[in-house]
Amino acid sequence: MSLSRRALIHLVGHAGGVGAVYRTMAAMGLLPIPAAYAGPPALPPGNGARVLVLGAGIAGMVLAWELGRAGYEVSVLEARTRAGGRNWSLRAGDEIVETNSMQRVRWGTGEHLYFNPGPARIPWHHEGILAYCRELGVKLEVMSNDNRGAFLHDDAAFGARPQRNAAVINDARGYVAELAAKAVDQEQLAHPVSPENRERLRDFLRAFGALDRDLVYRGSSRAGFVIPPDVGQGTLNQPLDLRQLLLSDFWYGRMEFGESHQQAATMMQPVGGMGVIGQTFGRKLGPVITYGATVTALRRDGEAARVIWQDMAGVAQASTAQIVVCTIPLSVLRGIDADFAPEIRAAIASVDYVPAAKVAFEAQRRFWEIEDGIYGGISWTSRDATQLWYPSAGIHQKKGVLVGAYIWSDDPGNAFAAKPPAQRLEDTITDDEVIHPGCRAHLRKGVSVAWKNVPFSNGAWAEWSRDARALGYRRLLDGDGPFLFCGEHLSYVNGWQEGAVRSAHHVLGQIADRVRGAAAQP
Amino acid sequence: MSLSRRALIHLVGHAGGVGAVYRTMAAMGLLPIPAAYAGPPALPPGNGARVLVLGAGIAGMVLAWELGRAGYEVSVLEARTRAGGRNWSLRAGDEIVETNSMQRVRWGTGEHLYFNPGPARIPWHHEGILAYCRELGVKLEVMSNDNRGAFLHDDAAFGARPQRNAAVINDARGYVAELAAKAVDQEQLAHPVSPENRERLRDFLRAFGALDRDLVYRGSSRAGFVIPPDVGQGTLNQPLDLRQLLLSDFWYGRMEFGESHQQAATMMQPVGGMGVIGQTFGRKLGPVITYGATVTALRRDGEAARVIWQDMAGVAQASTAQIVVCTIPLSVLRGIDADFAPEIRAAIASVDYVPAAKVAFEAQRRFWEIEDGIYGGISWTSRDATQLWYPSAGIHQKKGVLVGAYIWSDDPGNAFAAKPPAQRLEDTITDDEVIHPGCRAHLRKGVSVAWKNVPFSNGAWAEWSRDARALGYRRLLDGDGPFLFCGEHLSYVNGWQEGAVRSAHHVLGQIADRVRGAAAQP
Repeated sequence: MSLSRRALIHLVGHAGGVGAVYRTMAAMGLLPIPAAYAGPPALPPGNGARVLVLGAGIAGMVLAWELGRAGYEVSVLEARTRAGGRNWSLRAGDEIVETNSMQRVRWGTGEHLYFNPGPARIPWHHEGILAYCRELGVKLEVMSNDNRGAFLHDDAAFGARPQRNAAVINDARGYVAELAAKAVDQEQLAHPVSPENRERLRDFLRAFGALDRDLVYRGSSRAGFVIPPDVGQGTLNQPLDLRQLLLSDFWYGRMEFGESHQQAATMMQPVGGMGVIGQTFGRKLGPVITYGATVTALRRDGEAARVIWQDMAGVAQASTAQIVVCTIPLSVLRGIDADFAPEIRAAIASVDYVPAAKVAFEAQRRFWEIEDGIYGGISWTSRDATQLWYPSAGIHQKKGVLVGAYIWSDDPGNAFAAKPPAQRLEDTITDDEVIHPGCRAHLRKGVSVAWKNVPFSNGAWAEWSRDARALGYRRLLDGDGPFLFCGEHLSYVNGWQEGAVRSAHHVLGQIADRVRGAAAQP
Repeated sequence: MSLSRRALIHLVGHAGGVGAVYRTMAAMGLLPIPAAYAGPPALPPGNGARVLVLGAGIAGMVLAWELGRAGYEVSVLEARTRAGGRNWSLRAGDEIVETNSMQRVRWGTGEHLYFNPGPARIPWHHEGILAYCRELGVKLEVMSNDNRGAFLHDDAAFGARPQRNAAVINDARGYVAELAAKAVDQEQLAHPVSPENRERLRDFLRAFGALDRDLVYRGSSRAGFVIPPDVGQGTLNQPLDLRQLLLSDFWYGRMEFGESHQQAATMMQPVGGMGVIGQTFGRKLGPVITYGATVTALRRDGEAARVIWQDMAGVAQASTAQIVVCTIPLSVLRGIDADFAPEIRAAIASVDYVPAAKVAFEAQRRFWEIEDGIYGGISWTSRDATQLWYPSAGIHQKKGVLVGAYIWSDDPGNAFAAKPPAQRLEDTITDDEVIHPGCRAHLRKGVSVAWKNVPFSNGAWAEWSRDARALGYRRLLDGDGPFLFCGEHLSYVNGWQEGAVRSAHHVLGQIADRVRGAAAQP
């Protein structure tokens, strides 16, 4: 080896100030091996133990699936007339009911002509939901999430002209590497090292940022071409102005989006829409699920629980069980008359729900592919529409479903929910026109889902404040007598199906403990 | 706007040294609009003009397709018994013939059980080949190319233990941002700016590198978790040792791989294998292509050309045409007796061909998905195998085809080509075992293709030296009397199908000029 390790340590320690990092690391910087996915906990024989699950979303159906397999007597009450909950794909003929509106999807039919108003992505490390897809035979395909060909748009920068993701990301990267190289140069003066080691660190920065020989960023092919190479060499884009990059908010969660844990490749989706998971679960569970069952009260009944609910005909019913697992979102649960302990009530009331919303159109022409070379992925805008999602399925087909807006921040989300459906579509197209001028002509039959207004959801997903997490979260995890709580809201993977799966596995462990405890009694 | 633009210019100019960049930019840093894809050039009426094309690869078939559509009399001579050339997908029963070996593929059958020994990816901006996929009705799907869950392995670093791509890339990114922040701090002392602007640049670096409040990188969720979040918060990986990163060659083309122009997302593949493009072209062209036709001599015959070839029965044939387009790789063409001008001969001789090779196995179990959570994409190793490719198709199916080695550098490529097939498989599995211990048990029925030894290819793709490009390239582009030259080798997109398409479009323009010139004569 041609390098002096000691000299490098000195160089890097002085120049990078990463001493604090080194102190916490093993000598060779070996990664610990991540714990292998354990799957659901083993369940003791049910011996007739009866579990009642409230809600046939992902959490509730994982519970019913595992308990049924282990021989427990399990039943599920579901308020909607379909399985899946927020796992849902809309297709021609489907209805969207909100508290103050009704829409019907009037698109054409085709495997790729669907819209996922809820979850739409499965990251490679969501081993729980992936394992159920494998088990249920739900076919998966790769989807494009972070697309270098999509656009970033900010009204405050670049004269409001959309910029290709590749240009913004790689020009920024070049400038950062250039600054880093400056730091190395300056520190070298104070702490001389061998020319050889200095050169290796410089080579690293040169490769990182596509810097030139002088460690200056002057643009690179990573950022794209004005004239792409063909029989000629092509002409590079001029690098973007770093001043404009700083004026924009591109770097505030957007430029780094594809590196984040939940968003990084590989990203997958079920063939035919995310709703295939919920549908398949529902079909396999069959009569275990009672649909159209609206829970109206949760009562303590000695050691057991009594659930009062209304059936599809509006007739009041009651079900009793030793264990009731409630997967009802806290945003809904807080409105149900329940015999919960005061701290439980307080915990349920302490959690906010994100007012996320999406808009989808049928496009008569996949203009984003033909005219812009955008194949899947997401464009971002500083306007309320926030994100445009291009379908990864049905590439080059005639029609496609474009998600024209995916909003999740509070103010735009609440404002969006308050608008009538027609106004939502108009406002979305106005924002989309900034990124795709003329797109209005191709987009029709729009529908929207504002989760805040969707009955039995009342919001998109749980958002815990630091305080609420410290106080209420642990309390809810423990359950309340016969009541156990479950769902994405009772995980640290909020807003993802994986959170629901992991929470269900946790509750399965609690049930196993109770059943073992009961069996151990004389 | 709360920012002083002038102050920012000063800050960035002084701290980043990007003055040279600014001088070349328009005031607002607006990106010029890239030229829209023009498609093939318009052709004048053929009026019986006869064109003979040598080679039914992508270049030759694009030529035949466009000329046929414009009413030209066109025929294609193809040495192989199939269309596509290097565009090729191997399936059960197929044969691989090299100069000194014969292999047969003995895998099971299934849409996803194929192997692309040649091109295997279509980037989003390869508008030429994408347009032909659309026109031919070749279905495309998204593929994972740069996968944060795949591994980087270097025998020289981290005790030779493979590291997740996400950890290497994001830890390196953090250290670079930390160094950059140091440079800003130091320069600030010399060039004071308002606290507000300083803070915006710092925020940018903090977001870029996932730095903490003190602008130090102490690891981040981007690099992954030892214990992933579930109902608990999870435990982050400890950051990798920058010293180890510098010792490795990860940063030499591997860490930045996914940002490069040709490799960045969105990446696509035809459903069922890349070979579907060649097959579909071949089927649509039908009798225009004569298969098993080996060109033995190229003669001048007045203004025209005479091509001497051997048919499938070994009988000598001759064809005459005013225009002969030769798409035969230069590595093969240099061995054919031809009446070319001396500079043309010299140009043909001046180009190197890359000795790329691939190995593929049938896996009885998709262990990379089940055990490692790797869905598509590429792992890298410092050993000769260089890259392992995981299939993006057939996720969670029982079997899969794993590319255990993709080699393209000269020394390993030449050494690989010299080995008998059994030895190639053994050596590949030995390398793969470092990344996936125990994989030997799951991999069987391996096959390999060393393009250097494949008749009618004699190499994988053209690699032009700077000198050869300056001298011979332009000369070949001009053609030689009735002979025009075409293929990926006559483009700046070498090794990609897009190069073949763009070269074919260039030659169509040359043919159009000649036909127009002939029509203008009295």
